[in-house]
Amino acid sequence: MKQTKLCAELNIKYPIIQAGMVWVSGAKLAAAAANAGCLGVIGAGSMKLDLLRSQIQKANSLTAKPLAINLPLLYKDIEKQIEISIEEGIKIFITSAGSPKKFTKYLQNKGCYVIHVTSSFLLAKKCEDAGVNAVIIEGFEAGGHNGRAELTSLVLIPEVSKQLSIPVIAAGGFSSGASVLAGLTMGAEAIQIGTRFMMTTESSAHDSYKNLLVESGEEDTFLRLKKHVPVRLLKNKFEAEIAELEDKGANKQELENHLGRGRAKSGMLEGDIKDGELEAGQICGFIKDIKPLAKVVEDILSEYDEAYKRIYNP
Amino acid sequence: MKQTKLCAELNIKYPIIQAGMVWVSGAKLAAAAANAGCLGVIGAGSMKLDLLRSQIQKANSLTAKPLAINLPLLYKDIEKQIEISIEEGIKIFITSAGSPKKFTKYLQNKGCYVIHVTSSFLLAKKCEDAGVNAVIIEGFEAGGHNGRAELTSLVLIPEVSKQLSIPVIAAGGFSSGASVLAGLTMGAEAIQIGTRFMMTTESSAHDSYKNLLVESGEEDTFLRLKKHVPVRLLKNKFEAEIAELEDKGANKQELENHLGRGRAKSGMLEGDIKDGELEAGQICGFIKDIKPLAKVVEDILSEYDEAYKRIYNP
Repeated sequence: MKQTKLCAELNIKYPIIQAGMVWVSGAKLAAAAANAGCLGVIGAGSMKLDLLRSQIQKANSLTAKPLAINLPLLYKDIEKQIEISIEEGIKIFITSAGSPKKFTKYLQNKGCYVIHVTSSFLLAKKCEDAGVNAVIIEGFEAGGHNGRAELTSLVLIPEVSKQLSIPVIAAGGFSSGASVLAGLTMGAEAIQIGTRFMMTTESSAHDSYKNLLVESGEEDTFLRLKKHVPVRLLKNKFEAEIAELEDKGANKQELENHLGRGRAKSGMLEGDIKDGELEAGQICGFIKDIKPLAKVVEDILSEYDEAYKRIYNP
Repeated sequence: MKQTKLCAELNIKYPIIQAGMVWVSGAKLAAAAANAGCLGVIGAGSMKLDLLRSQIQKANSLTAKPLAINLPLLYKDIEKQIEISIEEGIKIFITSAGSPKKFTKYLQNKGCYVIHVTSSFLLAKKCEDAGVNAVIIEGFEAGGHNGRAELTSLVLIPEVSKQLSIPVIAAGGFSSGASVLAGLTMGAEAIQIGTRFMMTTESSAHDSYKNLLVESGEEDTFLRLKKHVPVRLLKNKFEAEIAELEDKGANKQELENHLGRGRAKSGMLEGDIKDGELEAGQICGFIKDIKPLAKVVEDILSEYDEAYKRIYNP
């Protein structure tokens, strides 16, 4: 697999980043990804401070490779989350859901590498102007929180890669080695993979949720809650209730009232697959197994080689 | 550029198909595409029978290359449209908006090659089972009428290409040579390009509409009319009215009433850019010029080479 400049900067073997996913990407998943040659990322958004510290320590005990932390900037304890991450030796920060101006300089002054997640060219340009080291550009097909412009990966990657001078990491819709090669072909310096890595033995998604993902079909995710914060959900009872409210023209407040609090945790971590919020990317409908992360990476490498030979076969 | 098996079957130099687009892809555009080494396609859906015959004749007078016809199967004169096309020497039919079972065998018995347009793996499999020669799989980012599953090109192409044994043509989101190479990398046998070819001197889109497309930004198309037939529209007064109705929970009938008849013609062909229906793909926001189709193809070829070298640099 192509070694990009970003591989050297991040000290990773393959240009693959395991997405930081709320409730499902803890120490075990991040360490497994790091040990498999990818960038392992602890999804810290949902973690209380003690848990965050212990998860970083645990991940560091499971791998000698560099780890990153994914921090949505909207939580009240964000400054403490940052301090703990730095204290525990994290050098790569993936930030989202807030202004890239807010902590970038501070983190860089502490010797950290800052990647901001965004969903359009104009927002990516703002990240570059704010001085981040790299951007993750996430398409409409991605699971979880999603951009308002609904731009897809195929539309975004060639354009954003061409127009920005910092490295662009492509996210949304990737699970096969063929798509990884396609992303690099379009100019991405690395590919972020979420749903396929959530569907591994090491992710902390509840088994009931994993089973539901395996059984899902291609038409089973929907972008919901557009009047609140758009989020791609796997269909279930909760999603159907939101769909019905939206069909009737419910406003932001009505949607927020029905969403309430704690549904993502109860769904994805605790396995309430009826009333919980189940975040997943479109690609889940095509993934038919749960296996160790290292096996997923092995498959990606062989699919990559196959796709490579399809084009570069003299 | 890679010569796929489909290039040989369709007798084209490049694995690129100019999309048949209602009101904008007549004889001039189809002949220009054919002369540039692509498959030229007359978008016949909107054409009355006399116009259809004269457009095929005109196209044939402008090129010696093979031409295809794009026929949505929902118009009342569909059988006559087919007869006229066969009489005028068309050998490649691209069908959509109806069952692939309906005319495939009939057309194949007349020596024609049948390609059906679809938008999900399950629908593509049904096309294969119906015996079509190839499928066009169109992602959410595409302009005009769109699938209900909202699956994107990046999600669909690797999976559909892997699971079908007939050739898969990728559509939706393509305009640069880098994306064309990415599509082929993921297993497509050809790439269909719509919006980029609509934004050429040879397309019959009205100049006012072309200018609006050039000025558009990345956030300016929206998938509307989902309760009727989903269609990706460029923002304008009409689109905003539909958005407002949808926001309030309008039902199918209310949407159809507001849509009325003839809006696509008045918008795209006649240039009523306020009240007309303007169909366009997401990629329009990144296209900043109108130029001859041959120049577009030339640019695609050089971008393709650049993307090729990005990966294959021994």
